[in-house]
Amino acid sequence: MKKGIFITIEGPDGSGKTTILQMLAQNLVNEGYEVVATREPGGIEIAEQIRKVILDPENTAMDPRTEALLYAAARRQHLAEKVKPALEDGKIVLCDRFVDSSLAYQGYARGLGIDEVYSINQFAIENMMPEMTLYFDVAPEIGLERINKNKGREVNRLDLEKLEFHQKVREGYMILADRFSERIVKVDASKDLDTVYEQAEAQIKELINS
Amino acid sequence: MKKGIFITIEGPDGSGKTTILQMLAQNLVNEGYEVVATREPGGIEIAEQIRKVILDPENTAMDPRTEALLYAAARRQHLAEKVKPALEDGKIVLCDRFVDSSLAYQGYARGLGIDEVYSINQFAIENMMPEMTLYFDVAPEIGLERINKNKGREVNRLDLEKLEFHQKVREGYMILADRFSERIVKVDASKDLDTVYEQAEAQIKELINS
Repeated sequence: MKKGIFITIEGPDGSGKTTILQMLAQNLVNEGYEVVATREPGGIEIAEQIRKVILDPENTAMDPRTEALLYAAARRQHLAEKVKPALEDGKIVLCDRFVDSSLAYQGYARGLGIDEVYSINQFAIENMMPEMTLYFDVAPEIGLERINKNKGREVNRLDLEKLEFHQKVREGYMILADRFSERIVKVDASKDLDTVYEQAEAQIKELINS
Repeated sequence: MKKGIFITIEGPDGSGKTTILQMLAQNLVNEGYEVVATREPGGIEIAEQIRKVILDPENTAMDPRTEALLYAAARRQHLAEKVKPALEDGKIVLCDRFVDSSLAYQGYARGLGIDEVYSINQFAIENMMPEMTLYFDVAPEIGLERINKNKGREVNRLDLEKLEFHQKVREGYMILADRFSERIVKVDASKDLDTVYEQAEAQIKELINS
């Protein structure tokens, strides 16, 4: 059975990762590859139901560990129903955020512990880690400015309060890039879209042709 | 801060554990103790929502690992919102099923692995294990017969198909009773209700007065 290629893209909002993932997928399709571009919960009914529990604004009593377990549960279902079958069919799977997001945001920035959050995710994914993870690195100030530009407003006090959190997320990603250096490739996402795209495309081509 | 006492009761359906838990709780209340008798999801809104996802008959694509993570998530929320505050208030908490159910049913009988299911539950409970667990041991044939007696019908073919599964659950509990012998106390639940109650009550009294 031919095996596909599993690639994840990580980084903060405003890093351009979602736009570039679509460009990468389109380019690979044009070249004749079978591609699945996805993100959790990815239209998987059970994962969507879990996501609804996580995001329900009424659920203010949600414990951070409950939340981490729910993300791992939604991840498992999306993996089992969508990612795994596509890989078994020999497709290239591009996934917007995966385990590293939980490790950087909940494990590191929220303080639950990278190792602890990793352990529940290992249960969820059963060693099905991506062959390559592109980490779109950008200073939080730039990422937030891009998001706000899209919304057509200035950076405000609330955004600045969040800045410290986003700096912690970036630190978390740095730690992961160091720990999983054989898998995580850092892409300089401070550059313009075309330049970032070219960096990402070159990495993917190298992996596919290796 | 005075600390309460956390006791869990385990065993198959038909072992009498739910009835006896209520009798034990009532008896302790009569003696002047503050008692919380509960079971997951225990009326905790977020845990109830998670339970709904687990039990939705439409969710036939539910992966066993997704299910195990959802049980752990519901457990975490019930623990954080109900069990932990009660223990901090110095109350006696009697809980119908806890971590050992996941280990016996999903870890052992469903084959996910006791250690693996234990690891996600450790994340969920952060070492808040019960001081004592009463395991109501009874042969599956007897347990099923009692359940069917309640429903006023004979044991049927489907029940017998389930017998093998329930035998595996019992094996799982046996392994746990051996591994956690300092915590798990086996109660012979094949006896009549009053005799089983007396065994359980004696164990709880010994713990409270120790």
